[in-house]
Amino acid sequence: MPSARTPLLAEARPSSESQRSDDRAEEEDVALHGGGSDRQQSVRSLWTGRLRELLLFAWAMLATAAVIVLAAWVQHEKQSGGSPPASTMPTGKRNLIFMVSDGMGPASLSLTRSFRQLIEDIPINDTLSLDRHIWGTSRTRSSNSLVTDSAAGATAFSCGHKSYNGAISILPDFTPCGTVLEAAKRAGYHTGLVVTTDITDATPACFASHVNMRTQMDEIAMHEIGEGPLGHVVDLMLGGGRCHFLGNSSSDSCRQDDVNIAVIAQKRGWTYLDNRAGFDSLKLGKNVTLPTLGLFAHYNIPFELDRRNMADTYPSLSEMATTALRALEEATKDSDKGFFLMIEGSRVDHAGHINDPAAQVREVLEYDKTFQLVLDFLEKSDVEGVVVSTSDHETGGLATALQEPGQDPVYNWFPAFLANAKASAEYLAIRLRAHVADMKQAGDDSALSAESLKDWINTNLIIDGLGITDALDEELDLVAANTEDATTVFSAILSLRAHIGWSTHGHSAVDVNIYSSGGPAAEQIRGNRENTDVGKFLRDYLGVDVEDITAELNEKMVAGQPTEELRMTDFEMERGQKQY
Amino acid sequence: MPSARTPLLAEARPSSESQRSDDRAEEEDVALHGGGSDRQQSVRSLWTGRLRELLLFAWAMLATAAVIVLAAWVQHEKQSGGSPPASTMPTGKRNLIFMVSDGMGPASLSLTRSFRQLIEDIPINDTLSLDRHIWGTSRTRSSNSLVTDSAAGATAFSCGHKSYNGAISILPDFTPCGTVLEAAKRAGYHTGLVVTTDITDATPACFASHVNMRTQMDEIAMHEIGEGPLGHVVDLMLGGGRCHFLGNSSSDSCRQDDVNIAVIAQKRGWTYLDNRAGFDSLKLGKNVTLPTLGLFAHYNIPFELDRRNMADTYPSLSEMATTALRALEEATKDSDKGFFLMIEGSRVDHAGHINDPAAQVREVLEYDKTFQLVLDFLEKSDVEGVVVSTSDHETGGLATALQEPGQDPVYNWFPAFLANAKASAEYLAIRLRAHVADMKQAGDDSALSAESLKDWINTNLIIDGLGITDALDEELDLVAANTEDATTVFSAILSLRAHIGWSTHGHSAVDVNIYSSGGPAAEQIRGNRENTDVGKFLRDYLGVDVEDITAELNEKMVAGQPTEELRMTDFEMERGQKQY
Repeated sequence: MPSARTPLLAEARPSSESQRSDDRAEEEDVALHGGGSDRQQSVRSLWTGRLRELLLFAWAMLATAAVIVLAAWVQHEKQSGGSPPASTMPTGKRNLIFMVSDGMGPASLSLTRSFRQLIEDIPINDTLSLDRHIWGTSRTRSSNSLVTDSAAGATAFSCGHKSYNGAISILPDFTPCGTVLEAAKRAGYHTGLVVTTDITDATPACFASHVNMRTQMDEIAMHEIGEGPLGHVVDLMLGGGRCHFLGNSSSDSCRQDDVNIAVIAQKRGWTYLDNRAGFDSLKLGKNVTLPTLGLFAHYNIPFELDRRNMADTYPSLSEMATTALRALEEATKDSDKGFFLMIEGSRVDHAGHINDPAAQVREVLEYDKTFQLVLDFLEKSDVEGVVVSTSDHETGGLATALQEPGQDPVYNWFPAFLANAKASAEYLAIRLRAHVADMKQAGDDSALSAESLKDWINTNLIIDGLGITDALDEELDLVAANTEDATTVFSAILSLRAHIGWSTHGHSAVDVNIYSSGGPAAEQIRGNRENTDVGKFLRDYLGVDVEDITAELNEKMVAGQPTEELRMTDFEMERGQKQY
Repeated sequence: MPSARTPLLAEARPSSESQRSDDRAEEEDVALHGGGSDRQQSVRSLWTGRLRELLLFAWAMLATAAVIVLAAWVQHEKQSGGSPPASTMPTGKRNLIFMVSDGMGPASLSLTRSFRQLIEDIPINDTLSLDRHIWGTSRTRSSNSLVTDSAAGATAFSCGHKSYNGAISILPDFTPCGTVLEAAKRAGYHTGLVVTTDITDATPACFASHVNMRTQMDEIAMHEIGEGPLGHVVDLMLGGGRCHFLGNSSSDSCRQDDVNIAVIAQKRGWTYLDNRAGFDSLKLGKNVTLPTLGLFAHYNIPFELDRRNMADTYPSLSEMATTALRALEEATKDSDKGFFLMIEGSRVDHAGHINDPAAQVREVLEYDKTFQLVLDFLEKSDVEGVVVSTSDHETGGLATALQEPGQDPVYNWFPAFLANAKASAEYLAIRLRAHVADMKQAGDDSALSAESLKDWINTNLIIDGLGITDALDEELDLVAANTEDATTVFSAILSLRAHIGWSTHGHSAVDVNIYSSGGPAAEQIRGNRENTDVGKFLRDYLGVDVEDITAELNEKMVAGQPTEELRMTDFEMERGQKQY
């Protein structure tokens, strides 16, 4: 430690210098306490004093020069905007939360922002949490198309490689690629997946399974619970898609086979929860024993717009995310490794597929709320961490403008129509199907006459559900003609009035936004990036090696050419059997 | 200046301290040169030496402490990614180039990037210059609508205020607002406007004129040449829209009155150029005498896709920008003030309005080339400078995906169709109109029969022009039924095949990108910003005061309520009389 006798700079001096310093201390003692002749003493005192002064002066000058150099450098850095800051990965314990807003393109943001400003009556500069953390943009094409699907998109994130549409962490040569989650688990991190769709859907699947085509959900479920080539890799899964975990002797199953994955999981040590009571037992993360598998819906968790009207039967994305963050924090509190958690706002995409802007804005708001709570978690946590949020692609070709057929364009769109809608188009179509089935079962033919049906539709679905009071007769005709699935008709009726445009029920190629809590590590993905750069960042941030995992996978798996049928990627594949 | 006698830190000491320091210097003199009795001298020498040592030590400690604090701060800044860097405006001579890609939304970028990768056969990570300089995103709504027009958009840039659609640097209360260009001129900067549409169109108009509604182009032209409330404010204007500068006794005029602005301009000292020879005489900026007004097209400069097939009759955006940069650099070389130049890629918007993706990708590529040449100019220039590029809004509701009617969506789009197109839909429609007029004049009724006409259309316009060889009979019927203006039919035929979607012929509300050469000043507009923030940045960067200009304008202009007709904002207003 520095003291008056061993000044600060002396610590860095070579030993010969220290020795001289000690000599000087001796001289000082002599000078103060007497010794030798007066004259000698006086001269010696004068000269040792001068020497000490000179050394002190040299030290002071050196330190002052260092101040000047440092201050000038700081000034320069300030003026040059800090160059930009180089990306620096952390070295200690750390947590990484990766969020995916499936199907959310740039137009979803202005759509949701303006909607929120209307319903909350807030000024135009009161923006979303996401808006305040925009970090860059991501290019999304896959290896075989300018328009990716979610599987190739998530493979770019999980493996850091481009692959073909439909690929679940499988490369274009049909060999598997190690994922950041698998590598993180092997490196001692805890891992989690939170989604609002099937936990076997493309995005979560890509982190913890390897199959040639996303539709192979039977196999994906096996991999996810640890019956895949690498064994146990995920510690916590929360979401929907229960049917993939029940053997097809159960009427609730959507499997081809009679393998009961939920039972196998429990034998492997998983806590398995399949309803709201189960979710509540987790006490928002305070009471979680890993590994835990919570599947709270048969297929999808309902759209947020509908979920909140369902007596809290289903947990929300933000509730599941809170649970996962707390559980993983607790599980890693005594570890020198943190956790990797993937949280997907899965159903922004579904709202895009069915072109339902009212459902979409609520999905994006819930995602935005979840992003904010992750920011809050990181802020409060003692452990270093970062959140990166992006989309795999845009869905729907959404445009915040619609020119009505035969009309000139109007320079506006009308969020009030989205505010008035009390149910999603998906839910209204289910209600219609149920009504027709009920009337058929009751043998009530008069209720099924065109006029009665249209009247019922208008009163219960259009006015009550969509909040639209001026449905045209031809619109009611169209709904009545599609009693088996009027989803997209409801969406079109709403979008027309809100002046929201859609160009497809599939995906589009527009760049999507990247959001982050920022920091020096995240500089690596600042600006306009390939989606694979995001994937590379994930493993770089955690400092994990996916190449070893890839090698192990290649050893354990037999690569196979997919059949022609498996190569298909179309709307059916994206929507799959998604109904609930 | 610091010296051995007046140490650095002493400079900051209060005067009483300095006095003591001087006393010590005296004591030092005494100690060194002798004085008083030996004993007295010895004791005095010892004590002055001790005092000096203590002071030197204190100085050294203080300086060392400062080093430690600064070093710790620097380390923290490095680790926290530099916080981000604070925005710092330059203080010396500087140039500001503001670029507007009118109507270019996020989807235009992925559209053009993939198109370029196809035609140049380059890898997927070979991106646009713009891509490499993405800086943030801009929210675009106007004061009276979620969907802005170009006038309200440009008023946000020029004045830094939101206003109503149609406003040309006039506020919602119908009072004028001073613009960055006007304030820059008053502050001693040179100023310029470069566009590819009418120089009286909304974007350029907002920088140098004040009228209640953008359609008042007769008055805008007056203001622009210096006959407005502030007199001379622009030094250089290059673009189209010659017809607004000729009195209506000329057949080339599009004015309501017979005022010949071109003649007035020349009387005011402007060099007036109205053709390619005139442009060539400028020698790409080496031979420009300011003020210069160059109007090289009657209305718009043709779309880049067509212009390049027109024997260089019209200068390109990049040629005009090169000319302006060089001319303004030369004009300011001996000044302590630089220049403000606004460059607009005006017709990205027009390609959006007519929903023509083949025209749009060439407009964006030319804009990207111009952005790069501005970057190169700044790189080579001795004068500090920055370029900021953004859009006022998106046009067309462009989506890089289109679901064909009655078909499932396909996850792809096909840039090859845009590569095959050799002419814009606008140009093909003009050719069709001319052909029909010619045949009518020639009295050639057989050429105008449905079958002959469709055959001519297919051969000359669809196959030769659009590069499409499989036009359906109903498509040819539709073209033949719209001989007066088949523009949007041609666009639809092309977009269907390329799988490019559009939701409107008007604008949309999606956020647009901000691009910049960057630097510390530009930190002010990093992230997601209101479009007015971009406007505020422009004047902050130049350090000019628009409030004085606003006050002067309010003194000189009488605010007037616009008529109901002027408040209208629709497609007609946006397209105006745009034909050539």
